[in-house]
Amino acid sequence: MNKYKIVSLVLAIALIAALVQLVYNTKVAAPVADTSRNAVLENIFARKSVRSYTDQPVSREQLDTLLRAAMAAPSGRDMRPWKFIIVDEQALIDTLAVYLPKAKMLEEAQAAIVVCGDSSVVDSDGNPSRNWPFDCSAATENLLLAAESMGLGAVWTGVYPYPERVNAVKTALNLPDYIVPLNVIPIGYPKGEQKAKDKYNADNIHYNGW
Amino acid sequence: MNKYKIVSLVLAIALIAALVQLVYNTKVAAPVADTSRNAVLENIFARKSVRSYTDQPVSREQLDTLLRAAMAAPSGRDMRPWKFIIVDEQALIDTLAVYLPKAKMLEEAQAAIVVCGDSSVVDSDGNPSRNWPFDCSAATENLLLAAESMGLGAVWTGVYPYPERVNAVKTALNLPDYIVPLNVIPIGYPKGEQKAKDKYNADNIHYNGW
Repeated sequence: MNKYKIVSLVLAIALIAALVQLVYNTKVAAPVADTSRNAVLENIFARKSVRSYTDQPVSREQLDTLLRAAMAAPSGRDMRPWKFIIVDEQALIDTLAVYLPKAKMLEEAQAAIVVCGDSSVVDSDGNPSRNWPFDCSAATENLLLAAESMGLGAVWTGVYPYPERVNAVKTALNLPDYIVPLNVIPIGYPKGEQKAKDKYNADNIHYNGW
Repeated sequence: MNKYKIVSLVLAIALIAALVQLVYNTKVAAPVADTSRNAVLENIFARKSVRSYTDQPVSREQLDTLLRAAMAAPSGRDMRPWKFIIVDEQALIDTLAVYLPKAKMLEEAQAAIVVCGDSSVVDSDGNPSRNWPFDCSAATENLLLAAESMGLGAVWTGVYPYPERVNAVKTALNLPDYIVPLNVIPIGYPKGEQKAKDKYNADNIHYNGW
């Protein structure tokens, strides 16, 4: 029965190997909860302005997820004074690129989202929001962070408060008077590798007064 | 040598159990990359305005992390026209609470961050940023999302463009003329459970024009 002695030895070694692997995997998997918290900060630090895109298409579902993130932003008195125009017709993207010389990267983009303020949204006193540019900016930042987390590239190109750009976008998209475009965000998969800048500057921080 | 036959059997069963556990763990651990991506979206959807705080202190290191996130925001022409005041002296927090009737939750806060525009930051033509309120709003949203991911609670209380609030904060913090406070963000650990709102509204989305 020396055979079973050898089998026992082999099995014992295999078991030890399996247990070592199991302990190792558990150790590697353990910090998942922390990683998922850090993932938020890492994504904030990894976000960059992406101005060049591949031919890979971006789906309506992906664009909808970006807007779901945008609408999760806070707004003054919870007025949500925002509207969003998804532009994914190539001819219309090209028109925006012609109208907006500062947003030439639109030519390569698979889609664009135009974030707009809506002055027809009024508070309980009947007044439109005085905070819509801030609310729409917070919504835009959510959108940009969501894009980064989904492997997409995007960049904020300013429209408001430049009258010629505001009028150009209003004309291209047939916007009513009460809708003001704050920015145009070209979107696509990043072409080439682009790195985020480290913009931390301790001189920007003051403590308990100037 | 029947003993080794039994040992072999026991070892074989133990080995199978270990291998099953190993395969199971590998399957569970596999979507880590996806989870860390989703964690960003989940955090965006989980962020809420927290207006009540426990006595648990918030450290300077935590506040610095929040500002590191804030400064990672994009800004028009990369001008970074922002300054941040950390307020963690109780007397000064209380003064702000007195000066800002809309920000009474400051009374419970462990700290506050005041996000300010800096018109002394100029572009290559010597002009201050026309986009500072948008840039500072994007920085604020980064700060709020970072707080959520760190288990902290915070809320955006508006200061600019309300002249009486701007003047009150400038006085309390001894701000120079060229620094304009956009908001005051009370910060602390959330007291009670607060849930995020689902603010998605498909009516806010238009496709390829109005």
